[in-house]
Amino acid sequence: MPTPDSQQPARRDLANAIRFLAIDAVQAANSGHPGMPMGMADIAEVLWNDYLSHNPDNPGWANRDRFLLSNGHGSMLQYALLHLAGYDLPIEDIRNFRQLDSKTPGHPENFMTPGVETTTGPLGQGFANAVGMALAEKLLAQRFNRDGFELINHRTYVFMGDGCLMEGISHEAASLAGTWGLNKLVAFWDDNKISIDGNTDGWFTDDTPARFEAYGWNVVRGVDGHNADSIKAGIEQALASTDKPTLICCRTTIGFGSPNKAGKESSHGAPLGKDEIAATREALNWPHGPFEIPADVAGVWRANDAGAAREQAWNALFERYAAQFPDAAAELTRRLRAELPEGFLDAADAYIAKLQAEGPVVASRKASQMAIEAFAPLLPELVGGSADLAHSNLTLWKGSKSVATDDPNANYIYYGVREFAMTAINNGLELHGGFIPYDATFLVFSDYARNAVRMSALMGAHAIHVYTHDSIGLGEDGPTHQPIEHLASLRYIPDNDVWRPCDAVESAVAWKAALVRNDGPSCLVFSRQNLPHQPRSEQQVADIARGGYVLREGGTTPRIILIATGSEVGLAMQAAEQLGDDVRVVSMPSPEVFERQDAAYRESVLPRDVRRRVAIEAGTADYWYKYVGLDGAVVGMHGFGASAPAEKLFPHFGFTVERVVEVARTLG
Amino acid sequence: MPTPDSQQPARRDLANAIRFLAIDAVQAANSGHPGMPMGMADIAEVLWNDYLSHNPDNPGWANRDRFLLSNGHGSMLQYALLHLAGYDLPIEDIRNFRQLDSKTPGHPENFMTPGVETTTGPLGQGFANAVGMALAEKLLAQRFNRDGFELINHRTYVFMGDGCLMEGISHEAASLAGTWGLNKLVAFWDDNKISIDGNTDGWFTDDTPARFEAYGWNVVRGVDGHNADSIKAGIEQALASTDKPTLICCRTTIGFGSPNKAGKESSHGAPLGKDEIAATREALNWPHGPFEIPADVAGVWRANDAGAAREQAWNALFERYAAQFPDAAAELTRRLRAELPEGFLDAADAYIAKLQAEGPVVASRKASQMAIEAFAPLLPELVGGSADLAHSNLTLWKGSKSVATDDPNANYIYYGVREFAMTAINNGLELHGGFIPYDATFLVFSDYARNAVRMSALMGAHAIHVYTHDSIGLGEDGPTHQPIEHLASLRYIPDNDVWRPCDAVESAVAWKAALVRNDGPSCLVFSRQNLPHQPRSEQQVADIARGGYVLREGGTTPRIILIATGSEVGLAMQAAEQLGDDVRVVSMPSPEVFERQDAAYRESVLPRDVRRRVAIEAGTADYWYKYVGLDGAVVGMHGFGASAPAEKLFPHFGFTVERVVEVARTLG
Repeated sequence: MPTPDSQQPARRDLANAIRFLAIDAVQAANSGHPGMPMGMADIAEVLWNDYLSHNPDNPGWANRDRFLLSNGHGSMLQYALLHLAGYDLPIEDIRNFRQLDSKTPGHPENFMTPGVETTTGPLGQGFANAVGMALAEKLLAQRFNRDGFELINHRTYVFMGDGCLMEGISHEAASLAGTWGLNKLVAFWDDNKISIDGNTDGWFTDDTPARFEAYGWNVVRGVDGHNADSIKAGIEQALASTDKPTLICCRTTIGFGSPNKAGKESSHGAPLGKDEIAATREALNWPHGPFEIPADVAGVWRANDAGAAREQAWNALFERYAAQFPDAAAELTRRLRAELPEGFLDAADAYIAKLQAEGPVVASRKASQMAIEAFAPLLPELVGGSADLAHSNLTLWKGSKSVATDDPNANYIYYGVREFAMTAINNGLELHGGFIPYDATFLVFSDYARNAVRMSALMGAHAIHVYTHDSIGLGEDGPTHQPIEHLASLRYIPDNDVWRPCDAVESAVAWKAALVRNDGPSCLVFSRQNLPHQPRSEQQVADIARGGYVLREGGTTPRIILIATGSEVGLAMQAAEQLGDDVRVVSMPSPEVFERQDAAYRESVLPRDVRRRVAIEAGTADYWYKYVGLDGAVVGMHGFGASAPAEKLFPHFGFTVERVVEVARTLG
Repeated sequence: MPTPDSQQPARRDLANAIRFLAIDAVQAANSGHPGMPMGMADIAEVLWNDYLSHNPDNPGWANRDRFLLSNGHGSMLQYALLHLAGYDLPIEDIRNFRQLDSKTPGHPENFMTPGVETTTGPLGQGFANAVGMALAEKLLAQRFNRDGFELINHRTYVFMGDGCLMEGISHEAASLAGTWGLNKLVAFWDDNKISIDGNTDGWFTDDTPARFEAYGWNVVRGVDGHNADSIKAGIEQALASTDKPTLICCRTTIGFGSPNKAGKESSHGAPLGKDEIAATREALNWPHGPFEIPADVAGVWRANDAGAAREQAWNALFERYAAQFPDAAAELTRRLRAELPEGFLDAADAYIAKLQAEGPVVASRKASQMAIEAFAPLLPELVGGSADLAHSNLTLWKGSKSVATDDPNANYIYYGVREFAMTAINNGLELHGGFIPYDATFLVFSDYARNAVRMSALMGAHAIHVYTHDSIGLGEDGPTHQPIEHLASLRYIPDNDVWRPCDAVESAVAWKAALVRNDGPSCLVFSRQNLPHQPRSEQQVADIARGGYVLREGGTTPRIILIATGSEVGLAMQAAEQLGDDVRVVSMPSPEVFERQDAAYRESVLPRDVRRRVAIEAGTADYWYKYVGLDGAVVGMHGFGASAPAEKLFPHFGFTVERVVEVARTLG
């Protein structure tokens, strides 16, 4: 740790190492954001050199402090920190900032760069991820810690800018963090009074400290973000908080050190330019060339040895813990490895087989709850809840215990009406390790959470998004509450698996698939209303997991194929009965999963030459032309829904056996 | 106005009329939300009978006070008020609550019910709409009022619940309302401590009054929402505010009057049930039958005469104003009628013809700014801005003046980083009348605003959503900032027109179309990078407005058709050159508009028998199967983007002339 010793570089020089890596990398890329790294360098320097507990040689060490950059456009700050601290991010990567396939993309990507905990850039979400990580720490600690064994005991630090604080998600996430009393969460506000459009006086006049106090936060006002002592004092106040998360308000100058651009939006999102960089080198007394870090500065920054020692000490603690509490140690290890418990798959399959045999006629949301009830007792890592719709989404089960308690089995989250933070918090929970999170709301309100669902997919987060009331079947609440475009829109998010099951069996298979799929999210979409049970052979039951399968054969070369999902599968089966023996019905609960099957399987389900195809789904019709082509037809929605009992709406919008039969017959 | 006169019904009885209309309508529908109307009835009664300035016989009177129900699930409160006050909503409609085609849908719909200012239900958005309406009032007042002529002078009242306050959009909207000092905005918080999941202690612990003070609001604490004097005192404090919006914190009991369900979530979202209704009639001393309102109560509520008198007085004022300021009066009248100025269409066409002749090679975002620059001087009703990306979205023009000033020509909104509130505020601006609002952000962050875009479409709001940086062409910022699924997802919102122009000419046509389309929203999607100019005949220029047209003929029966939008149109034209004279290129800037053309025109552009079709768009490939069918091909995106310069990304993801040619040739 640096001290005011003549052998040691000054703290400002340590921070300048960040500044010039950022300045020079942005200049080399001819694009990027130098202003934020220059402004937050002193804060980052103090945090990383004096406080952050991590091991650069093992970015996956379970008990590391988490560091998140919610203002992710300042990515060069994080890359500079990782490089200087000794992570696997050599100077060549810094030189390749923002180039194709480099480990230093424009915004921090958790899947690209060792030491990046989460992907940031979409403002405010990194902060919500941090709330999720701090919640994860609290929950793991209360389940696994024992007297004398503070096995899980780390902080979550997050940097955020004015942009993050303007976004609505900051309200939702801060409110929950305050309610939960996440005292190990420490947020640094980069209070530089500049956003892209200029001085924030015209559009950001909140009293932010008072606002966070209103959320029940510990607020440290008036820290000078360019004074190490002031920063340290702020952090000490945060570490002393026993029951509240802390916001450290750091007054900073964007582009600090640039003689002509400091304090101005011109330093925010563009290279400083050659002349200004020279002037900044002069002003900050940094005579070193681009990408050159003097040895004494580099030496102080390197954290590998200290980090390795920290992890070794923790590993020794863990060994003693494992000796004393072998079951808990095994469970923790399993969960951190993101492995399902032994026997889970067999148990799930047995449950599915039992459902197929029993054939309950329930709403698929009820089938979802039954699946949770069946699977959750086996999965202590399953944590989640609903955005104030528990009794509609049916997310509660017998073992639900609120995370607002210190119960070791706490696993249920009352998110309140906060769909966006719910989803981003769950992304954070998942990225922390140790959890499979699920969240829930009405399908139509996936809109409110949408970019966080996208982030689940981009980050490969094993998050499960439960969306009930999946169509006009919602009934009387009317068009504001009836999803139309949502199924297709969620399917179009890359790497996002969407399931819309047609009965209790498919619902259980969807849940199993979502639990097994550990490299990306799944959206499970369920009906409000009851759905008939479909008879199936063993092979058909097995094929559900392939995303699409033949539910009614219609011969080897059927004359007509009806393709349906969810509540429309029953309709398709009835229509097929009327249309004749040579009519196939394909149940397609997850088109994305179906697309991942081999070509032969897909051809066996949807033979290319059979062009009389009708797709039936109570959602956007257009999506289905991919499967029915120019010669087929779609029975779908072509506009908004309406307010009326569901049993009136389905015929009103053309979802009847008669109409499906009629449409199929027009194909010849 | 009711006074404590023995001839007058008690205020509680006036409020009970609301309660029982709500109770009985929900019971008859066997679905709905009685708890909120029962809880807010006393507040609504005081506001409507003592303060609200409106005319039930003319819900469109320009200077009426606006009343919005952000907690729209309590729709029966609003229907009861409208019915009792004398709007065209007879008791039969109340009896038909939540039935198909009734004027009383499950949530208030502005397009269904006279007197409903906005559609609510998606929580928090009604509050943001109210901020937009209050801003509209401020802007109209500062443009049109003259000494002695307070022509525009009304309040905006909004009811909101805990759910609205938990949503992030409440933060964004409240922050802006505080910054703008919208003192004629009065929000009533229904502080009943109950949300759907139960007592909010476990998930909503904000100090809401302190939070709103942090936004610069005037906060009235501690109003007893069941005491008329307390409510009146609160409203008086709001009316006295000269520079701040007001939040009136009303402590209420959900389901007030129900002996067994008051104060409980069981009264929130389900009928009380026969027995409990009887008990409530007893408890509230309301012996009248379902849907019966005693004459004395009805008499006090009727506001038709007073309302007509109010409007007549205003009409007289307007006549004097028109005599003295004929130009201003004419402009106001035109704007309130939502008519474009005389000569606008000709001017727009002349501008488009000039662009076609000059052929500038610019980014379409630049072309958008040029269009604004050309059209805005003719359109004082055009008001808008960007979510802190003015210099990226290119939304500023020479005449831009911030709405945070009292300049009579104020027309530019610095929204800060608040995409969701931006969009919902604009919906409010539009619904108020007098404005065509536009908003702007990067296309990828339309996600943050998504449900408000949907609400624009559902409500038929003439709002213009400008989205720039429309593809991987955004470059180095990487996958978090590169839209993939967004084009298709926005197109799938019913009644939403999406335009993705290929050059400056199409950009101007798109702007013109968005300005002309006064019954719904348009999303204008623009590139970051320069796009080549396309030569066109006069007929082709005219056909752009049809959403899709033949840009390169390829003979009457072309062998191959290439369909493209935006930046990929240039690519398609180059590929067609290589492929031969019998290859057609269709530019399809707006598939939704194209779909509204007659069948003959569509067939002339895309002859059904030509099956060798390739669609090219740097977005979700799957969308385009609608146009290429099972025999065609799509050059599109199949996953997330990456961080690199745009000129590297297009070839990396297969957007090259060679690839398009190759794909077209595989079709035979």
